[in-house]
Amino acid sequence: MNNNIMIVLVEPQSPGNIGMTCRAMKNMGLSQLRIVKGCDRFDSESLKFAVAARDLLESAHIYPDLASAIADCTLTVGTTRRHGKYRQEILSPPEVAGLFREQVSAECRGALVFGREDNGLTTEELSLCRWHATIPTSHEYGSLNLSQSVLLFCYELGKATEPVGGGRPLELAKSDEMETLFAHLDSTLNKIGFLNEQNPAHMMRSLRRIFFRANLDSREVTVLRGMLTQIDWASSAFDGRKRS
Amino acid sequence: MNNNIMIVLVEPQSPGNIGMTCRAMKNMGLSQLRIVKGCDRFDSESLKFAVAARDLLESAHIYPDLASAIADCTLTVGTTRRHGKYRQEILSPPEVAGLFREQVSAECRGALVFGREDNGLTTEELSLCRWHATIPTSHEYGSLNLSQSVLLFCYELGKATEPVGGGRPLELAKSDEMETLFAHLDSTLNKIGFLNEQNPAHMMRSLRRIFFRANLDSREVTVLRGMLTQIDWASSAFDGRKRS
Repeated sequence: MNNNIMIVLVEPQSPGNIGMTCRAMKNMGLSQLRIVKGCDRFDSESLKFAVAARDLLESAHIYPDLASAIADCTLTVGTTRRHGKYRQEILSPPEVAGLFREQVSAECRGALVFGREDNGLTTEELSLCRWHATIPTSHEYGSLNLSQSVLLFCYELGKATEPVGGGRPLELAKSDEMETLFAHLDSTLNKIGFLNEQNPAHMMRSLRRIFFRANLDSREVTVLRGMLTQIDWASSAFDGRKRS
Repeated sequence: MNNNIMIVLVEPQSPGNIGMTCRAMKNMGLSQLRIVKGCDRFDSESLKFAVAARDLLESAHIYPDLASAIADCTLTVGTTRRHGKYRQEILSPPEVAGLFREQVSAECRGALVFGREDNGLTTEELSLCRWHATIPTSHEYGSLNLSQSVLLFCYELGKATEPVGGGRPLELAKSDEMETLFAHLDSTLNKIGFLNEQNPAHMMRSLRRIFFRANLDSREVTVLRGMLTQIDWASSAFDGRKRS
């Protein structure tokens, strides 16, 4: 299971944290690190803090943005301290471990995404993730160090033993399939004048949450895209008027 | 409970680790730090890593040896990576949390003792502790950073005290709301020619599964019905032709 779990750091700012993250991952038996831009991972600080996990630092993959870093992953989990205004499934670390234990495989990769030390993940980055997760902390001081957050999730993942078989695993659509669906939805809804001109992103976030929660498989994404294509066709004569 | 749990560091060697330990403790709602000798706790590194937990650094008590640091404690737990030659109760972090939850009080203080970064606790120091505890790690690389070890135990202690909170309970849309949505969807898709004439029910069953799985609430049903109304409007000029 563990080779199919990606730890993704988005724009880490401290080389020491990258090194500590590698060490924490290796302590708990994880090995796949992906980094979106961020500081130099071969800084002397990161090497120092990686200690015996330098191999993870060397084998890490670098990406230009989060979408490409998780494109081949199915179970995408963004970590956050914000318990948004919107209803959203916020998982605890043991729940993430349970989800990954049940479903992660070579065909269904998991990605656990961590944001910047100072500002976490942006709303847009969080909206790329199917699930959100948070670590329960003291109300007085909820700001965890980045590598400490990674450790806690890796610790819970380490507790989770190998899959015990049972029901047929879901074959969820991958992140890039979902993004193609959302781009199509955005385009269609724009054409028919459904997206609020003041705040189109707001409505799209609501719709993303709905379709993420639906746990679509590839076939269903195809069905929905077929539906959108038919809507495009049926409304091709539409001139963009508002309903009165 | 938490004010009666002491975190004890024996001869910490890195000021940064003392600072990170303070931060990890405060993140998880613990406040009582005791230090047996060790490096300068007011080094610039420790202040830097303590961030907003500087108050714990300042209120820490310093002792000349472990015996005096835990003299007033009843439930003493020494952490170790060595699964000793001698029969000993080795607890996991959740077991320590359970023990403390059941028994810690103002009259029965708990102490969780961590050794030096390089050599841990000596056999003599371990023998001062009633229980021993260890963190399960990968066999390949079992050496955890000191502050990471403290964090994991504090995290389990935090779980034991605060309810692991999640989101608000789901308020799912009622059955009649869902059926109104499906009737609208059926009507719209019929009008734009998306439903297969041979077997319209088949496609509707697929779509019902998708929207049921999404666990919609009432607000979201309203959003989706608004979308359907706009599709109806945008395609009102449509004459039912098939796409060629």
